[in-house]
Amino acid sequence: MRELKIAIIGAGSTYSPELIHGFVTREGRMKVKEFALMDINKDRLDIVGGLIKRMCGEFKEKPLVTMTGNLEEALTGADYVVTQFRVGLLPARAKDENIPKRHGIIGQETTGPGGFAKALRTIPEILKIAHCMEKVAPNATLINFTNPSGIITEALSKYSNIRVVGLCNTPITTYKRINKVMGLNEEEVFYDYFGINHFGFIKGIYVKGKDMTDELFPKIMDHPKLDEMLGYKFNKSQALAMRILPVGYLQYYYHQKEVRENFLKQEKTRGELLIDVDKELLVQYSDPNLKTKPAGLDQRGGAWYSEAACALMDSFENNDRAIHVINIQNNGTFTDLADDAVIEIPARVEGECIKTLNFGKLPLAVKGLIEHVKAYESLTVEAAVKGSKDLALIALINHPFMTSADEAEVILNEIIEAHPDYIHLK
Amino acid sequence: MRELKIAIIGAGSTYSPELIHGFVTREGRMKVKEFALMDINKDRLDIVGGLIKRMCGEFKEKPLVTMTGNLEEALTGADYVVTQFRVGLLPARAKDENIPKRHGIIGQETTGPGGFAKALRTIPEILKIAHCMEKVAPNATLINFTNPSGIITEALSKYSNIRVVGLCNTPITTYKRINKVMGLNEEEVFYDYFGINHFGFIKGIYVKGKDMTDELFPKIMDHPKLDEMLGYKFNKSQALAMRILPVGYLQYYYHQKEVRENFLKQEKTRGELLIDVDKELLVQYSDPNLKTKPAGLDQRGGAWYSEAACALMDSFENNDRAIHVINIQNNGTFTDLADDAVIEIPARVEGECIKTLNFGKLPLAVKGLIEHVKAYESLTVEAAVKGSKDLALIALINHPFMTSADEAEVILNEIIEAHPDYIHLK
Amino acid sequence: MRELKIAIIGAGSTYSPELIHGFVTREGRMKVKEFALMDINKDRLDIVGGLIKRMCGEFKEKPLVTMTGNLEEALTGADYVVTQFRVGLLPARAKDENIPKRHGIIGQETTGPGGFAKALRTIPEILKIAHCMEKVAPNATLINFTNPSGIITEALSKYSNIRVVGLCNTPITTYKRINKVMGLNEEEVFYDYFGINHFGFIKGIYVKGKDMTDELFPKIMDHPKLDEMLGYKFNKSQALAMRILPVGYLQYYYHQKEVRENFLKQEKTRGELLIDVDKELLVQYSDPNLKTKPAGLDQRGGAWYSEAACALMDSFENNDRAIHVINIQNNGTFTDLADDAVIEIPARVEGECIKTLNFGKLPLAVKGLIEHVKAYESLTVEAAVKGSKDLALIALINHPFMTSADEAEVILNEIIEAHPDYIHLK
Amino acid sequence: MRELKIAIIGAGSTYSPELIHGFVTREGRMKVKEFALMDINKDRLDIVGGLIKRMCGEFKEKPLVTMTGNLEEALTGADYVVTQFRVGLLPARAKDENIPKRHGIIGQETTGPGGFAKALRTIPEILKIAHCMEKVAPNATLINFTNPSGIITEALSKYSNIRVVGLCNTPITTYKRINKVMGLNEEEVFYDYFGINHFGFIKGIYVKGKDMTDELFPKIMDHPKLDEMLGYKFNKSQALAMRILPVGYLQYYYHQKEVRENFLKQEKTRGELLIDVDKELLVQYSDPNLKTKPAGLDQRGGAWYSEAACALMDSFENNDRAIHVINIQNNGTFTDLADDAVIEIPARVEGECIKTLNFGKLPLAVKGLIEHVKAYESLTVEAAVKGSKDLALIALINHPFMTSADEAEVILNEIIEAHPDYIHLK
Repeated sequence: MRELKIAIIGAGSTYSPELIHGFVTREGRMKVKEFALMDINKDRLDIVGGLIKRMCGEFKEKPLVTMTGNLEEALTGADYVVTQFRVGLLPARAKDENIPKRHGIIGQETTGPGGFAKALRTIPEILKIAHCMEKVAPNATLINFTNPSGIITEALSKYSNIRVVGLCNTPITTYKRINKVMGLNEEEVFYDYFGINHFGFIKGIYVKGKDMTDELFPKIMDHPKLDEMLGYKFNKSQALAMRILPVGYLQYYYHQKEVRENFLKQEKTRGELLIDVDKELLVQYSDPNLKTKPAGLDQRGGAWYSEAACALMDSFENNDRAIHVINIQNNGTFTDLADDAVIEIPARVEGECIKTLNFGKLPLAVKGLIEHVKAYESLTVEAAVKGSKDLALIALINHPFMTSADEAEVILNEIIEAHPDYIHLK
Repeated sequence: MRELKIAIIGAGSTYSPELIHGFVTREGRMKVKEFALMDINKDRLDIVGGLIKRMCGEFKEKPLVTMTGNLEEALTGADYVVTQFRVGLLPARAKDENIPKRHGIIGQETTGPGGFAKALRTIPEILKIAHCMEKVAPNATLINFTNPSGIITEALSKYSNIRVVGLCNTPITTYKRINKVMGLNEEEVFYDYFGINHFGFIKGIYVKGKDMTDELFPKIMDHPKLDEMLGYKFNKSQALAMRILPVGYLQYYYHQKEVRENFLKQEKTRGELLIDVDKELLVQYSDPNLKTKPAGLDQRGGAWYSEAACALMDSFENNDRAIHVINIQNNGTFTDLADDAVIEIPARVEGECIKTLNFGKLPLAVKGLIEHVKAYESLTVEAAVKGSKDLALIALINHPFMTSADEAEVILNEIIEAHPDYIHLK
Repeated sequence: MRELKIAIIGAGSTYSPELIHGFVTREGRMKVKEFALMDINKDRLDIVGGLIKRMCGEFKEKPLVTMTGNLEEALTGADYVVTQFRVGLLPARAKDENIPKRHGIIGQETTGPGGFAKALRTIPEILKIAHCMEKVAPNATLINFTNPSGIITEALSKYSNIRVVGLCNTPITTYKRINKVMGLNEEEVFYDYFGINHFGFIKGIYVKGKDMTDELFPKIMDHPKLDEMLGYKFNKSQALAMRILPVGYLQYYYHQKEVRENFLKQEKTRGELLIDVDKELLVQYSDPNLKTKPAGLDQRGGAWYSEAACALMDSFENNDRAIHVINIQNNGTFTDLADDAVIEIPARVEGECIKTLNFGKLPLAVKGLIEHVKAYESLTVEAAVKGSKDLALIALINHPFMTSADEAEVILNEIIEAHPDYIHLK
Repeated sequence: MRELKIAIIGAGSTYSPELIHGFVTREGRMKVKEFALMDINKDRLDIVGGLIKRMCGEFKEKPLVTMTGNLEEALTGADYVVTQFRVGLLPARAKDENIPKRHGIIGQETTGPGGFAKALRTIPEILKIAHCMEKVAPNATLINFTNPSGIITEALSKYSNIRVVGLCNTPITTYKRINKVMGLNEEEVFYDYFGINHFGFIKGIYVKGKDMTDELFPKIMDHPKLDEMLGYKFNKSQALAMRILPVGYLQYYYHQKEVRENFLKQEKTRGELLIDVDKELLVQYSDPNLKTKPAGLDQRGGAWYSEAACALMDSFENNDRAIHVINIQNNGTFTDLADDAVIEIPARVEGECIKTLNFGKLPLAVKGLIEHVKAYESLTVEAAVKGSKDLALIALINHPFMTSADEAEVILNEIIEAHPDYIHLK
């Protein structure tokens, strides 16, 4: 078993203990020699890093915990790099949510003008990380958590030479919830899942190798806990007509109207609310008696993130040939999308050998919308990488939330003005 | 010069004299032996047919004018079939406009829920015409005017064996208006036009073979008569960033917000207003002294329709190798769309030999939206042909105007209820 | 565990005991309730069926063994259908080999004019089987052994509605031989294999999840047992330049010259030699004391066929998520080939859910030849299904062995004349 | 009318007067201010340049004729660059023909190992010309005559930024011969031609816009002058079964056997014979009394080259919207081939605006062979540009003439040894 150096960039995130917890539970399957915690915010790093050091007491073989504000130092010799950072922290998120809100548009940190702004801030930073890896950790794998995960992973795949896999907790969370509500045994179920990040669908469900799709779909759509399973009370007629279940974030498209009405009614955005949650968590983390993952972390969202990441690294290291839903370049998996577009799809991981399960043509029922959103995503990548205001305008206009090019231009200008330190477009 | 039989289906349309006028002005280039006027509405046919008979006095060699309510009779032996009918006439159009309006959505007869409803009514009828042609006029060409022209032409191309070309007056009108405002000589200009019906773009302008795109685009976008030229005051930053001019109906997408606000403010829909225009025209047409195309016809809209159709038939008959913008199966012209999807594109017509000018990849700036709308269109074709309510729901949800699957389901039910004689979905 | 009916069509083949042996060794994993042995040749069926009945003594729970000349009877209620038949038996094969030989062309039963003739004879018969299955065993899976396996499987996939998987022993045999010679542990190796039937390549070798390609390829190409591993002493410079290993039948293309010279020198063709082997085997099989798979069967060729088939059925039944190299419709696995072209590729089998491992673009080094041969194959399918001599001529001319359209025409006529009972082209 | 500078690279070619003659006949449509004749062989340049100077006496407005051995000087400010050079002159061609001959393979200067060797010699040189143009004539158009024209044009299109159009006299010659033999009026005929260079097909013939394919194809195939029209007595059954006529160089594929037998019988290769023709022409050209294109030039081959080039420049300059068969990047014209592959196809030329006539899917009857040869071509481009012996070996093995990878390796080594001054592979 090789000894791993795990670099966590943006380790001051309150999520970081979750990840450490994942390694604790897998001790024996993976041996960590070092957690290299990097953050430019020393205060946060001290608090979160302190907790992580205490958490490492749970390992039988204690890993080294190093803390640094220097990127190259953290990355040098790393085997895996995990990204947790948020450019501008939660106040930036609040801006991403409030600018669209002022125009009557959903403000959300992964999609719409909000996710767009976040991508513009994040891509230049994460490419710096990748280019540093090219020098000091060229064989490492970057596991990208940073949202909007699909867009960020596409930027990394197109514009760096490192190996990158994007992860999202939506698929795993959906599976676990359906399994729980429908009484299915996780070990026996295969979900025929496909899509792009935060834009996923379930096309079939196999139980013990038997196609149970036609039996389970109506039961799921009729179930009182439908919204718990799929993340929203999606329209039953649509799902059964498509014979495809939309998942989670599809509510922003198929129920944009209802979600918008609800969003506009709320006094505070999610980002604003989380500022308090975050502060509170940091207070908890500062308690020198806290030595394990704190219970309050679950409020923060992001369930199963750590599970997804650690299980993936486990497959890389231990060659267990498991299926993971990952964000990766399409390379023909969907015949409709460009080879270098990043998609979200089950892949079989046999050590270094990642093979997506071939999918073929996108079903016509969802192809149009996927193409539309993917065009927005790829344009956003280009805009951020090239620092082009022209491309940024075209990208934003391409988002299905936008219904006016004139308004898009106004919003783009507001985004640029709101983040003068992070967004530099010409 | 061969002698032509021209069958006009829905000849009771007030547009029909326009078409006859086109043939009058081209006498000498094409010889019509018969205009076969067919309409199921005998009253309208008598009035419009009467005017047409009088108009035929303008020909040196008088064609025969026959009038019938029998489809097979009109089609038998035809060389060209031109469709003018509207299933349910203008009252059906008013419903198409008002159902969306009640939900705060643009009601328009070619796009959105309105165009969707019109397609559902029209496709079964026009396929009957095509199947009749297969029997009694298998070598005739159907020139489709009926809206939504792209969807209807796609249904005909996929589900019949006759030769069909779809036409729309948008490209020719746009060209003529730009030429007029910018002082260009029609004979010297080539517009590098592409798109799908009511969804067209100009990618370049060549004058005397010289690429004047970079010079003309900013001038057009800055011109006070911009809206006259492109059909709307499109966003200048967007057009110049894309280096592509959107045309006409793109306002419904790139300025949906503004168009919707304006639409919802109006007391009467266009269809409702036209009911009176139509009545008035029929009164004019009834005047036995009227022997030429009446002046009032221009209010009715549809400028240059007749010019487009007659010029195309002229190229078929006289082999002049002219370029026409037509609706036709893609067959690889755009590498992104399916081979059997109908697109709107310049084609070189050398008699029977129609060759679209190859285009290649759709520019990423517009690809997403085109894919989205084309998916909606192809799903609508399937829904209408198969009579499937499930497919109809999926199609409608795919339209970019729709922001709620639940609302789409309500609207679909309202459409079905509003047209019990014409729409039969299961 | 469900109880299976296994129908063996052409059960009089001397291969059949091999298959029974496979089930014997997997008793406990699959429960066979009936072997339905069907053959139109009663004499052969009696001999081989007799041996099979005796072999079934090895099962703890004895399956029923039924013998019939009636196709529908054998197929009714079957769970799996395995095809073993050869239209015209070995004398037909000898003709397939000798017609090309007379023209100085390699005569081979799976490729070139020989394989072409065999496909023309076989496709009409196997489609009869498939259409019978559609009626009496619509949920059964046909496992196709019949050569040319890729072409036959493509015909079945395109022109019937049954589920079909094509199998070939080349991949499994190659793996086992490389593993043996190079000292690799079968359980630990993943071969990144791709191609079409009898036209396969190895693009990578992973051992315990580690990419060992760059280390192992030169060792394999330098090894004195190279030909034992890959089936031919392929050109080392080519393999290393391509970074792709050609396998087995590629000798007919990359070393056509040498193989042809050798073939033309031999007095008797393989088919002629096998006539005696076959007779001898039938004598052995007739021995009432023989109750297990006879040793002599190994001379007949076809090692590991039974292993491939039984392991696949095991994965279907027991949901073991194993990787199998199968012949199946492309559906985008290779972005270059048509969706309905049959390819040979690793697939993950989780019960009913077969997912090919996505491959993407064919490497340019081999794309041209694969496209060429696949065009020949698809044309052959069309020729056989439509009974068209025109298409047959075009197909044969497309085979890379052919260097003269005139000669191809002569050979086609000789093939038609040689098999008047089986090939009916117009 | 703008005044043109025409640079002729390799102007010492005995073809050059042909080109000048073309401009003479088009005086009034194009105004040449300068012919810049460049050649590294001063002796040839003096002789051919001398004749050209005398020929220019035929112009009413005399162009300047400059002669130089300096590439940059010739190219500076050029409007059109025409390439005529042959790296290594005719003795190199003789080697290209004799190396394959020694192995019993057709030696031909545009296809097979011969054309392959010529491409390896030519690509590095022509890219130097293109890169020089990028600096000193960035808006000029390079009209490529140099064989193998398709491969050379593909190298230029992929690896330089200049505008390049490849030309070949095969299509125009074929058209003129068919028109002559079949009594068709050139002005009235449209040939639906497609393919890649020296690999062209006719899919349809339209006369006065009427599809005459089904009538004319059998007449052409039955005609005693078939070989005069298509360049070879192609197999009638094949052509009619395909409903596609193969043209000229297809004989090397569809009748490789017969062509090879004939080739191997001949004592001297075409290149060897031309050495004498060339010498003789130079003697004629040296005659100070010769002031027009010499009659003997027709023996040299290459009829209509000048016509093709001058007519194309005429369309560029005079915007006549004519159809020209050109070699140009595919860009989706054939949906099967890569966008950057160079194909041979009719294009409509309206000044600067070149639009290929869209073709769509390659017919399956010819797709396989086209894909095979195009893969060889693209690999050859890569090998020459990268100077890679590995890629060169893969390329050569991909040529349909090759039947042994071992032999290909030997031949490649012989080619490298034969041209030490021109081919540098590692």
